[in-house]
Amino acid sequence: MTTAHPILVEALRGGTVESFHRGALAIVDADGAVHTALGDITRPIFPRSAVKLLQALPLVASGAAETLGLTDAELALACASHNGEPMHTATAAAMLAKAGLDASVLECGTHWPYDDAALKALARDGEEPTALHNNCSGKHSGFVCLGCTLAGGRDGAEPVRGFLSGYVQPGHAVMREVTAALQSATGFDLSNTPVGIDGCSIPTFAIPLQHLARAYARVAAGHGLGAAHDRAALRLRQAIAAAPQMVAGSGRFDTVVMQRLGERVCCKVGAEGVYCAALPELGLGVAIKMDDGNNARAVEVVMAAVIEALLPLSEDDAVFMRGHSDVGLSNRRGTEVGRLRASAALRAALGA
Amino acid sequence: MTTAHPILVEALRGGTVESFHRGALAIVDADGAVHTALGDITRPIFPRSAVKLLQALPLVASGAAETLGLTDAELALACASHNGEPMHTATAAAMLAKAGLDASVLECGTHWPYDDAALKALARDGEEPTALHNNCSGKHSGFVCLGCTLAGGRDGAEPVRGFLSGYVQPGHAVMREVTAALQSATGFDLSNTPVGIDGCSIPTFAIPLQHLARAYARVAAGHGLGAAHDRAALRLRQAIAAAPQMVAGSGRFDTVVMQRLGERVCCKVGAEGVYCAALPELGLGVAIKMDDGNNARAVEVVMAAVIEALLPLSEDDAVFMRGHSDVGLSNRRGTEVGRLRASAALRAALGA
Repeated sequence: MTTAHPILVEALRGGTVESFHRGALAIVDADGAVHTALGDITRPIFPRSAVKLLQALPLVASGAAETLGLTDAELALACASHNGEPMHTATAAAMLAKAGLDASVLECGTHWPYDDAALKALARDGEEPTALHNNCSGKHSGFVCLGCTLAGGRDGAEPVRGFLSGYVQPGHAVMREVTAALQSATGFDLSNTPVGIDGCSIPTFAIPLQHLARAYARVAAGHGLGAAHDRAALRLRQAIAAAPQMVAGSGRFDTVVMQRLGERVCCKVGAEGVYCAALPELGLGVAIKMDDGNNARAVEVVMAAVIEALLPLSEDDAVFMRGHSDVGLSNRRGTEVGRLRASAALRAALGA
Repeated sequence: MTTAHPILVEALRGGTVESFHRGALAIVDADGAVHTALGDITRPIFPRSAVKLLQALPLVASGAAETLGLTDAELALACASHNGEPMHTATAAAMLAKAGLDASVLECGTHWPYDDAALKALARDGEEPTALHNNCSGKHSGFVCLGCTLAGGRDGAEPVRGFLSGYVQPGHAVMREVTAALQSATGFDLSNTPVGIDGCSIPTFAIPLQHLARAYARVAAGHGLGAAHDRAALRLRQAIAAAPQMVAGSGRFDTVVMQRLGERVCCKVGAEGVYCAALPELGLGVAIKMDDGNNARAVEVVMAAVIEALLPLSEDDAVFMRGHSDVGLSNRRGTEVGRLRASAALRAALGA
């Protein structure tokens, strides 16, 4: 037996806890004052895709988004871990076309769509996935658009292509801009922290939950990021609220929550059980990491409980959120066999 | 911070532990003497599909398997959580045909195949899965075969069908036989323990790891189950060793380990991070439960480390098992970005 983070989520079967998920949670304001802390919020963790909004700040602040006329849907996709549905691949392709390029410039790699229907449709048509189906293709298309602006005087697709080559590497001009935005937003020294390679080949820097939550609190409050990034964050929040189907996709938690609550929540999942959110009306940022890296079943339940506890909700909205923080589990014949729910320890810490 | 089970598996990225998995482990002999214990091995947990071999004992002991002429492949499938590949669905259909019945009698429900290629092939052909694709269809076909023997003097498919109806219910004659075998093998009172409904609609009874490991030690040693079940256990072990592709399927851990090590290991995964195994040459049984319910990434790594530490292995076999207890993790472009490995605490407890 060793000391450990608290249990945040329980999976029950037949009225008995069958499995459970431990983790840590930070809720912080833009000045860094801690609203809620569970577990160790000072240990650096890899935020993975939960910081895509922060990584997209230079796309807007550089003027690239305006120059290329990126739409709300395109900006939302730049902050997305999408399902690989046709709307997502088409939007990524449109971003690249505005930059005068195509999917061959993407360095994110390829995988089958997350979305079950999209996967089966590809299989049915005898097709293989492309880099556009990669859940990160929108973020990478955003990097490419940023790169077109950073490429400066280079004229024509080939010189721009040459400049972009290796844009996923830490030392490339594009990634240096992205990393600087992340460091500035979180206020955490990224030159002296563990760094890994993300699923889509860009670096991921270990950052404490406290700093991640503070960065999202700054996004929520609309100040503290510096004037250009404050404006960029607001623009991205508005784009995401206008096109939440782009950030994740059909039936996914990020999308359905923001479809329901609009600009009241700006949330983003990351691989390995990470979640970040900005709650603008409260000026608070949220960052969660599940110890075991569980996403769909654990960290979403925690985020649902956080939103449910912190935001004043209509009765309908409260019922909707409760449907994500205390969920019936059914078996192969549709019989309810258990529940997935936020733990009493989590609800107590949230004052719920 | 609370007390917790030890960390058994770590997932690393960039040399840093990104996520980790806690759990408990019992290794016991047929007399109940504890060889290794990590965490609380006395708390009842739902064993799920990890006890399918024990649940198949009456199929053999009743004489049903012999009467119907079930093959090694069919008996192995009766102990399986299979991939839904064509070889699996064909074998389940053949078992039902020997009983004079078909898939319409199955009460396990339907889901898409676990196997990616099988899923895409179905989608490509515009087909939908049937109950035969359910990973438990072999176990259920075994229940049906047992039911045909229990149905006694009933003649013809329709009276047998009538007798079988509701065979997944705890009070049905089939399930009473199956439950009695489980209680007898584990030596644990199932009348007074939490009971849930499994994914395939049969009851799952909470049993401590210590008792689960002891049941598998009895399977390993070939004694302690009573004469008829001792013989049945040996028959099932031999069938599984002869047809390990039936127990899980292409590329799955259970299958590849038993293809490699033959009768030296008889192992079976269960949902929610459970694993049981019999190690016949050592007369030991193994039972593992991951707190977070993680299967592929956590409990398989633990089982691999157990086999690696306990069995005397050739250099090639040791390298093979190490490839499952300390695994490189690659990203979408095939770059190695991290490792999945048994923890130092686990290796130390195993004396490795």
